[in-house]
Amino acid sequence: MNRQTAAILVEALPYIKKFRGKTFIIKYGGSIMNNEEAKKAFIEDVVLLKLVGIHLIIVHGGGPNISAMLKQLDIESKFIDGLRVTDQKAMEVVEMVLSGSINKSIAADLCRHGICALGISGRDGNLIQARKKYLYKEEEKIDIGYVGEVVSVNKKLLTDLLEKEQLPVISPVGCDEEGNIYNINADYVASAVSSVLEAEKLILLTDIGGIYKDIQDPASFISFATVDEMKRYIEEGIIKGGMIPKAECCIEAIERGTKNVHLIDGRREHSLLLEIFTNDGIGTMIRGGV
Amino acid sequence: MNRQTAAILVEALPYIKKFRGKTFIIKYGGSIMNNEEAKKAFIEDVVLLKLVGIHLIIVHGGGPNISAMLKQLDIESKFIDGLRVTDQKAMEVVEMVLSGSINKSIAADLCRHGICALGISGRDGNLIQARKKYLYKEEEKIDIGYVGEVVSVNKKLLTDLLEKEQLPVISPVGCDEEGNIYNINADYVASAVSSVLEAEKLILLTDIGGIYKDIQDPASFISFATVDEMKRYIEEGIIKGGMIPKAECCIEAIERGTKNVHLIDGRREHSLLLEIFTNDGIGTMIRGGV
Amino acid sequence: MNRQTAAILVEALPYIKKFRGKTFIIKYGGSIMNNEEAKKAFIEDVVLLKLVGIHLIIVHGGGPNISAMLKQLDIESKFIDGLRVTDQKAMEVVEMVLSGSINKSIAADLCRHGICALGISGRDGNLIQARKKYLYKEEEKIDIGYVGEVVSVNKKLLTDLLEKEQLPVISPVGCDEEGNIYNINADYVASAVSSVLEAEKLILLTDIGGIYKDIQDPASFISFATVDEMKRYIEEGIIKGGMIPKAECCIEAIERGTKNVHLIDGRREHSLLLEIFTNDGIGTMIRGGV
Amino acid sequence: MNRQTAAILVEALPYIKKFRGKTFIIKYGGSIMNNEEAKKAFIEDVVLLKLVGIHLIIVHGGGPNISAMLKQLDIESKFIDGLRVTDQKAMEVVEMVLSGSINKSIAADLCRHGICALGISGRDGNLIQARKKYLYKEEEKIDIGYVGEVVSVNKKLLTDLLEKEQLPVISPVGCDEEGNIYNINADYVASAVSSVLEAEKLILLTDIGGIYKDIQDPASFISFATVDEMKRYIEEGIIKGGMIPKAECCIEAIERGTKNVHLIDGRREHSLLLEIFTNDGIGTMIRGGV
Amino acid sequence: MNRQTAAILVEALPYIKKFRGKTFIIKYGGSIMNNEEAKKAFIEDVVLLKLVGIHLIIVHGGGPNISAMLKQLDIESKFIDGLRVTDQKAMEVVEMVLSGSINKSIAADLCRHGICALGISGRDGNLIQARKKYLYKEEEKIDIGYVGEVVSVNKKLLTDLLEKEQLPVISPVGCDEEGNIYNINADYVASAVSSVLEAEKLILLTDIGGIYKDIQDPASFISFATVDEMKRYIEEGIIKGGMIPKAECCIEAIERGTKNVHLIDGRREHSLLLEIFTNDGIGTMIRGGV
Amino acid sequence: MNRQTAAILVEALPYIKKFRGKTFIIKYGGSIMNNEEAKKAFIEDVVLLKLVGIHLIIVHGGGPNISAMLKQLDIESKFIDGLRVTDQKAMEVVEMVLSGSINKSIAADLCRHGICALGISGRDGNLIQARKKYLYKEEEKIDIGYVGEVVSVNKKLLTDLLEKEQLPVISPVGCDEEGNIYNINADYVASAVSSVLEAEKLILLTDIGGIYKDIQDPASFISFATVDEMKRYIEEGIIKGGMIPKAECCIEAIERGTKNVHLIDGRREHSLLLEIFTNDGIGTMIRGGV
Repeated sequence: MNRQTAAILVEALPYIKKFRGKTFIIKYGGSIMNNEEAKKAFIEDVVLLKLVGIHLIIVHGGGPNISAMLKQLDIESKFIDGLRVTDQKAMEVVEMVLSGSINKSIAADLCRHGICALGISGRDGNLIQARKKYLYKEEEKIDIGYVGEVVSVNKKLLTDLLEKEQLPVISPVGCDEEGNIYNINADYVASAVSSVLEAEKLILLTDIGGIYKDIQDPASFISFATVDEMKRYIEEGIIKGGMIPKAECCIEAIERGTKNVHLIDGRREHSLLLEIFTNDGIGTMIRGGV
Repeated sequence: MNRQTAAILVEALPYIKKFRGKTFIIKYGGSIMNNEEAKKAFIEDVVLLKLVGIHLIIVHGGGPNISAMLKQLDIESKFIDGLRVTDQKAMEVVEMVLSGSINKSIAADLCRHGICALGISGRDGNLIQARKKYLYKEEEKIDIGYVGEVVSVNKKLLTDLLEKEQLPVISPVGCDEEGNIYNINADYVASAVSSVLEAEKLILLTDIGGIYKDIQDPASFISFATVDEMKRYIEEGIIKGGMIPKAECCIEAIERGTKNVHLIDGRREHSLLLEIFTNDGIGTMIRGGV
Repeated sequence: MNRQTAAILVEALPYIKKFRGKTFIIKYGGSIMNNEEAKKAFIEDVVLLKLVGIHLIIVHGGGPNISAMLKQLDIESKFIDGLRVTDQKAMEVVEMVLSGSINKSIAADLCRHGICALGISGRDGNLIQARKKYLYKEEEKIDIGYVGEVVSVNKKLLTDLLEKEQLPVISPVGCDEEGNIYNINADYVASAVSSVLEAEKLILLTDIGGIYKDIQDPASFISFATVDEMKRYIEEGIIKGGMIPKAECCIEAIERGTKNVHLIDGRREHSLLLEIFTNDGIGTMIRGGV
Repeated sequence: MNRQTAAILVEALPYIKKFRGKTFIIKYGGSIMNNEEAKKAFIEDVVLLKLVGIHLIIVHGGGPNISAMLKQLDIESKFIDGLRVTDQKAMEVVEMVLSGSINKSIAADLCRHGICALGISGRDGNLIQARKKYLYKEEEKIDIGYVGEVVSVNKKLLTDLLEKEQLPVISPVGCDEEGNIYNINADYVASAVSSVLEAEKLILLTDIGGIYKDIQDPASFISFATVDEMKRYIEEGIIKGGMIPKAECCIEAIERGTKNVHLIDGRREHSLLLEIFTNDGIGTMIRGGV
Repeated sequence: MNRQTAAILVEALPYIKKFRGKTFIIKYGGSIMNNEEAKKAFIEDVVLLKLVGIHLIIVHGGGPNISAMLKQLDIESKFIDGLRVTDQKAMEVVEMVLSGSINKSIAADLCRHGICALGISGRDGNLIQARKKYLYKEEEKIDIGYVGEVVSVNKKLLTDLLEKEQLPVISPVGCDEEGNIYNINADYVASAVSSVLEAEKLILLTDIGGIYKDIQDPASFISFATVDEMKRYIEEGIIKGGMIPKAECCIEAIERGTKNVHLIDGRREHSLLLEIFTNDGIGTMIRGGV
Repeated sequence: MNRQTAAILVEALPYIKKFRGKTFIIKYGGSIMNNEEAKKAFIEDVVLLKLVGIHLIIVHGGGPNISAMLKQLDIESKFIDGLRVTDQKAMEVVEMVLSGSINKSIAADLCRHGICALGISGRDGNLIQARKKYLYKEEEKIDIGYVGEVVSVNKKLLTDLLEKEQLPVISPVGCDEEGNIYNINADYVASAVSSVLEAEKLILLTDIGGIYKDIQDPASFISFATVDEMKRYIEEGIIKGGMIPKAECCIEAIERGTKNVHLIDGRREHSLLLEIFTNDGIGTMIRGGV
């Protein structure tokens, strides 16, 4: 460190002042999880944000590791419209990989920096009550197995953990009152957690840089949008395909109480800090509020 | 319930009065984990003890499920003197099964009764610092892979969780400062946790009823023993074979601060309540203190 | 205790879960106070309820002991319509017996079980502000001496005591701002205390089993009633005579904030546990709420 | 109030500063209890001391009221050496008068000034564990019935009450583990309470002005004495007769942890304030400490 | 102290009971600050009020000391309509004298009595946000330099200090977001502080005894007035000249949340105690409320 | 900010982790106080350290401003051996400038960043008890007026302020029990405060870069020294002249409980961050401990 680097630290001051004591929910997933450099930078960013006094909760996804394990175990899956149908045997593997492998690995990486990160799943402490989700396709209701959606979130558990300065790392598995276990989309878990806590920010790390009016034209990148604009983009077909569920998840988060949502490119090193500690950020920010 | 059953409830009064506010560590493992009746009764006993105001922590083992999964994944293991050598590939499976499957299942069973049980592993919140353990055989130090022993326990994390009325369910996995992951004998994890909290009771659920002077002679059952007597039993060969490590684990627990240790037969329904809420108990109690 | 009795304990689980942390007010009086067996069972029930985490307050009556002492002291009383006119001399004796003898005896019986029971009267800590009550008879207002009714209850005192895990045992004596002392009906003291704390349950121990549509016909027993039903029973003459004031006291308790009221037969051993820890109970339950 | 009276208030400043937050135990008894003027002044003094932030506990005696009630009830007592032998029948009356009449009256007088005074006896909350006391006379051990001495004091109960800004008024009745009730000398109850709390002051209100070297000679009044001097006075026969037990009670209080003991004449109006808020005081002060 | 003086102390009881735990803001200024006798009595009064449990905040003025220092430094001031125009050079002197000399002297005088008085200015802890104030004269807006008015008060800082039993002594200097420093009328600072805390009393020590209908006629003194009456007195010209701003300051205090305002003559010894601890007081009390 | 600058922020992580929750005392003085650039950087550094969770206390000096004001007021001072004799008139000016001007300016600069900085002097809250200090010269004791040394520090006041997240800015003025005011060397005030709090670091900002074995030879700069080495440097004449008192002040701080002392060049921008957030630092660090 020298005089210039000290000056850089000082540049972060206004952002630290602004966000101290606020709560951020971070959805961590995508290809970053298999990129050692990006992963290391992500962990460092989280530790820094925690140390400057921001309350953090991480919700992670799974992806490639699950497929690998299913394959290793010779569990074949039926696919409907590209969606895997999760039977009970598959669900057991999904939970093991999510809650027993990925979850523990993230928590332990944070703990090595002295942070008290606790890896839990939505089944712990009744954190996430879920119900079965169906696929609707041309008026037809299709059973895709143990795939669920969030019914409710145990807010007290999260505030108790945050109060004790712990950092919850949440695996996106929930259950219903009969004890059925469900795999839930991590974006939606993060969105539900964020809303129940009325978080300052929900930050979704993705594999693209944010939202573009025309994905071919980098100049069409959208840095800021309101919920109304997001809805119009969907209506007008500007947001389309796989981006639609993600956009809807963002809209829902804000409509249920989250202050702001950020979509950022997790593959860029330190993308988290760059988004939070600069005025313009590097991703797309969807603003709630008046 | 009728007048007789009400009277039975009242019989429990002196024990409830005695143990309210005290801390019990329960090692849960062995064949009970695959016995639905005994498991249901165990969960009910734990819930009752929690509701009458006892602070509880559960440490669980793994056993058959791990072997089954290793087999399913065609991971073969070398055996030395009957001990499995755990290489890194095996360790990944061990952790997934312990922390992602068994651990979540126990926590969720308790949560269904309204208890806030949190399934964590020794890697969460730096709960268990471990180091590599070697097998010593005729002066030779044998490397058996990722098998570890407890170096230290994060007491603050446990007291923070207990203070918030949470019930930690601990998977016996720890790590060292380099991030190496170790499988640790659950008896020893329970013993270390119990000692660091100076628990009132460490209760080990096993597959036998306790300690016998002569295993063939039911009349030789030992209901109470002091640490000195335990040591003599080992010296005199009364305790022998596979019981020696368990006996040593009990002795260590008491010498490091646990008040009393109980060895009980987990296969008997409600063995937990029967041990704690009766004068003579049903297992072997090793007494600490003067 | 054996496996069967352990199972009985476990049967109480759902009720313990439901009522932990809730507040119950128990009116203790009638012939049970002179029945050693029933009294012992009552004390045990109270201790058990306290130990499983229910907040309890006991309000007691007096009855036979007062008459005995007045007779011993040759204090004769005028009677109007069967009601004793309490002059100042009598009032002094009433207070001595209630607050100095019965009250201390109940508190000490609980304390012997390790409960921190505190015997206080409505004059302590300005607990019960009272005013003179008149007897109205055919348009005439008759002075019956130092008989009072509750004006207000010092809620802070009670919540302070409950917060410190103390169990208040209240003698039904109050005073006004001039310092006049009044004997107050214990049912009404219990009802007022229950309402100011918005208690989960007000439980009145009586000498009959509850309310019957026809007292001669055991089959006409009423297990559950709403406030509206109770009012109709009074109008229709189903509830009559000495039961009317008791019924009105129950109605008032619910209309002022108590959640549920129970009328149970104190003479039956463990009637308290049987009422609270079974689905149907053994007495009459008057339900508040929607 | 005028300028002169304001100046008087200001004179009290150094004493208020000195004693704020400290604990005083006051033994209230003797003829003052039947003197309306002195009683009113005593209550006012206590209220003032409480309001300026001193923690207070009052222990009261009984005396004449008890004898009157025993006589009224035709309970005759055997006397040994001038000491009444208290049989069970008498004990019941003693408790009723002490805990139900005198105790409530003092608490209520304080409450009328807005103080939260709670009248309790040594049987409430296991406050005073007692044991039977025998009279020793010429090597003979004489049974004088239900007269007891303090075995232990429940310190937690008192600190819990003081923490909630309550003022305990204690009736000098205790019990043993078998439930036997004992009448205990109020001086000794006050001394035991004072010692267990390591009180700043134990103040005994009596019917004489303090200790005189020669009771006939007012000039021989002792304003200050150390414990050693007190012991010498007893040895040398300067303190004699009925003053000996009181002197021994004072010595014991200091040797067990009380900082200072004051003997003052309760019959003088505002004697409490005059003793505490002036340099020389009006009674005898026995100093503890180095 | 003797029996009479003890009785005087007891006379203060009802007032102590009434005001314990309430908050008083005292504006200290005027000629009393240069009168050693009155100052000593004022300090004693404040200490007594603090010790009996009243929360106090002192706001002080400056006056003669400032002029003396300006003169000593040869800083001449322009005057408009009798008002000094405060340029930056003068403002620096004003702050030094107010915050560095007068403020420290008051705090230290209180500290010598064992009170934890903290001398701070409106610039500390962002206590007082201010803005420039203009003089309006016949439609003309005149710049009188660094004279300000209160924009907002940092309530949290004051409640934090009071919670720690500290006594804030406030120098009437504030600043705006650009860092400009302003001298503010101490009456208005006290009024703003009082309103933000919804204080029980705002007490303004002045150089006259209160408000007179006719200043020449002592019999026309006003002991009590409502806000409406005050407004009428201004309209009717009964309150006039220099008294108008002070009267408006009182009215504003009550309309913004202060319970009562007192105007008293600071030159009379112990005027503070005499006003607060007597029924009629010695000054003018303006009552808020219904 | 870009990827490089984010990486710089992350470099600070280990230092933030190490010092979070620790207490630093910073002596702020010398030429930096009149250097706008350096002052701005200093304020930013302090704000950053505070925001990342370090407890800070600033003690400031005075210097040039005092001389200027004395000159302006034509207060001439006698000098003895280059030391100004501070008479009462001068002392009044010293206090005004230190506590009313410099102190407020530092606190307000910090407050503008949202920090709750409170400017107090050693006379507030009895923070610094002082006594007169004499100059000893050739066996002669010379009176140099109101120059003092620290007798004791009010630790509770400082911990109360830190607990409320306030940042005390202390002016080096103290008083004795007679109310005499003393000017105290700010280094010694900082050292005494640091020792009473057993601070992690005492940091003295000076006008040189630290300690040199040979001031002419930059290569002889001392980065680390133990207390024993410091003592030897003084004995051997390596530390000499004006550096001796400063060195002795450092030694005293460590011997009385401070963990480490740093001497750094306040004139270098961000010297505070550079010293704390790099391994080697830029100044001289004197290590305490084993």
